[in-house]
Amino acid sequence: MDQLRALETPCLLLDRAVMERNIHRLHRRLRTAGVPLRPHLKTTKCVEIARLLVRDQPGGVTVSTLAEAGRFSASGFQDILYAVAIAPNKLAHAAALRRSGTMLSLLLDSADAARAAGAAATRDGLTFPVLIELDVDGHRSGVSPDPSVLVSLARAIHAIPGLALRGLLTHAGSAYDGTSVSAITAIAELERSTMTAAAATLRDAGLPCPTVSVGSTPTALAAQSYEGVTEVRAGVFAFNDLMQVRLCVCSVEDIAISVLTTVIGHYAPKNRMIVDAGWTALSQDSLRHSGVLIFGYVCDDAGQPLEDLVLTALNQEHGIVTRLSGGTIDSGRLPIGTTLRILPVHACSTAAAHDRYYVLDESAQIVAAWPRFGGWTESG
Amino acid sequence: MDQLRALETPCLLLDRAVMERNIHRLHRRLRTAGVPLRPHLKTTKCVEIARLLVRDQPGGVTVSTLAEAGRFSASGFQDILYAVAIAPNKLAHAAALRRSGTMLSLLLDSADAARAAGAAATRDGLTFPVLIELDVDGHRSGVSPDPSVLVSLARAIHAIPGLALRGLLTHAGSAYDGTSVSAITAIAELERSTMTAAAATLRDAGLPCPTVSVGSTPTALAAQSYEGVTEVRAGVFAFNDLMQVRLCVCSVEDIAISVLTTVIGHYAPKNRMIVDAGWTALSQDSLRHSGVLIFGYVCDDAGQPLEDLVLTALNQEHGIVTRLSGGTIDSGRLPIGTTLRILPVHACSTAAAHDRYYVLDESAQIVAAWPRFGGWTESG
Repeated sequence: MDQLRALETPCLLLDRAVMERNIHRLHRRLRTAGVPLRPHLKTTKCVEIARLLVRDQPGGVTVSTLAEAGRFSASGFQDILYAVAIAPNKLAHAAALRRSGTMLSLLLDSADAARAAGAAATRDGLTFPVLIELDVDGHRSGVSPDPSVLVSLARAIHAIPGLALRGLLTHAGSAYDGTSVSAITAIAELERSTMTAAAATLRDAGLPCPTVSVGSTPTALAAQSYEGVTEVRAGVFAFNDLMQVRLCVCSVEDIAISVLTTVIGHYAPKNRMIVDAGWTALSQDSLRHSGVLIFGYVCDDAGQPLEDLVLTALNQEHGIVTRLSGGTIDSGRLPIGTTLRILPVHACSTAAAHDRYYVLDESAQIVAAWPRFGGWTESG
Repeated sequence: MDQLRALETPCLLLDRAVMERNIHRLHRRLRTAGVPLRPHLKTTKCVEIARLLVRDQPGGVTVSTLAEAGRFSASGFQDILYAVAIAPNKLAHAAALRRSGTMLSLLLDSADAARAAGAAATRDGLTFPVLIELDVDGHRSGVSPDPSVLVSLARAIHAIPGLALRGLLTHAGSAYDGTSVSAITAIAELERSTMTAAAATLRDAGLPCPTVSVGSTPTALAAQSYEGVTEVRAGVFAFNDLMQVRLCVCSVEDIAISVLTTVIGHYAPKNRMIVDAGWTALSQDSLRHSGVLIFGYVCDDAGQPLEDLVLTALNQEHGIVTRLSGGTIDSGRLPIGTTLRILPVHACSTAAAHDRYYVLDESAQIVAAWPRFGGWTESG
């Protein structure tokens, strides 16, 4: 652990063996089901990790920003789905990526946005492959699966020069409200059945629908059938986090990232300890645990949870550690300067707080520092 | 507004005139009180803004990370207070900054950390100026103002070679629990009176205490007396945010930053609109407004709040807009592609989500793009 103790904290650690096991688990599961993975790169935003995610897969990826599309395109990824309904002011950027040869697919759920995308494409003599976003659970965005509404939008898109209708996409975000694997399995089945019915509706209307794209980490790990689905999107599964543990789709031992931090103070009268990881290092994602809002599990520097120590408040550069039981923290065992690891509530937001992953091998030796990017422009 | 409409969203806008007015307001207030400002640069993390913050001030600044200390030191700031209790693994970094000639002051609240800091200093033949952190309100960190506890720690620090005791510091974070200006004024007075009494205790014990450092934006704007205080720290005041509006220390018109975003979808059956600013662009800070948790006010692209439109949920790249009244959103008035601005709940976290400020003059013309940094290392 000497190497870890020499790092300036806070910083982000990635346990490569745990991540590879997580990736292998979903790859194997989907291979058995006969459906390919189109990994969502928004969680990791790292070229080295993206290469592991597409290993033995067809190679298509999912992104949440055009900055991701540009960076991954420049690193050799050529089949990229931008899975957020596109804003008109991003069309010039998207067209530039498309012109460079990237097979950049767009997501649409309105005729207004479709007309803007078509105009941008024809201006440049391009064609954008397009998926229609379907709202299967009222969670966020997407068009209603009502056949008349859906067919009307699909016909409009199909008629717009510069757009090539390729099918349907959904994200059953309500899976995150699930409280058991069976509840998530039911949402996954709702996702699948609504999507396959909608695809049949389009095909019956003589419209093209080769792609039926579903996904989220919980539904990808809990679905019992993928019949009629042509690809599964998921991103968090590579890292996992306490939210996925809460959803019962992984264990604490499956969490591959942690924030390395250092004890900077003990406050026995207030029953608390302070570490140097605040919301800038962990994000503000929290979950309720035994009635208390927590921002992470506190582990030793080997990654083993320390009894009932949790983060119960975050400031910009301070993390407040208390015991769930309300008991006293043993300051003799964890003196100032002790290096600890924090398991995150939400991998996407915690990773987004860092510009690199310190990659650990199975002996907890740092074997690489992989860059991670953020922002909305390739220069960002 | 054509310039704004050409920007790819989301991005961070800074209204320079509003910021200058905010800075001038606190400068004038403290000049009248005869106490200097030591601006906290953690909110802004931008060299151009830091120069405006120290204009007509003695020049000392406050930082929350050694990355800030390093960047600002390299830009000519030489009197830097690192206002987080130092972790032992940061002492080599701190010593390197001190060796380069920066007057880097450290904050301590324990004898253990003091011994580590002293050892690092003497190893390099250096002296660290040191402030003792006092806990005036039980909010976070700091030593008890109990005279025996305080004098004992101060004597220990004073005796450690390599450390030069310079006085006391506190941050009355409980000001953020205030619900009226009078409540915050009372906390500011508690902060001042506890600190001046503690300073007298140290001086009576023959210990040096030239510095009595207090601060937070709410207490800096609401204090009625600074007697005995030698410097005030504050950072958010330059930008302001909805949290400061809630604390009644500024108005919505005083908020200098906003996130430019674009309408990407309308969902009339769900009474919502979606914009392309999620938590990656806004942070997850929220506050309760009329019983609803909100993540920002929605404004037109000139920065004027649009009736009762607010963000009520955020995903990674999606912001869900609803009306506080529950009424229908006029999609004809705000079609897809409409550019809007979001006023943030918490300026520190929203600014931390961006790598540059698009600086607007009074005609809303973009006159500069000022870089903003984050992370914990100078290369970060």
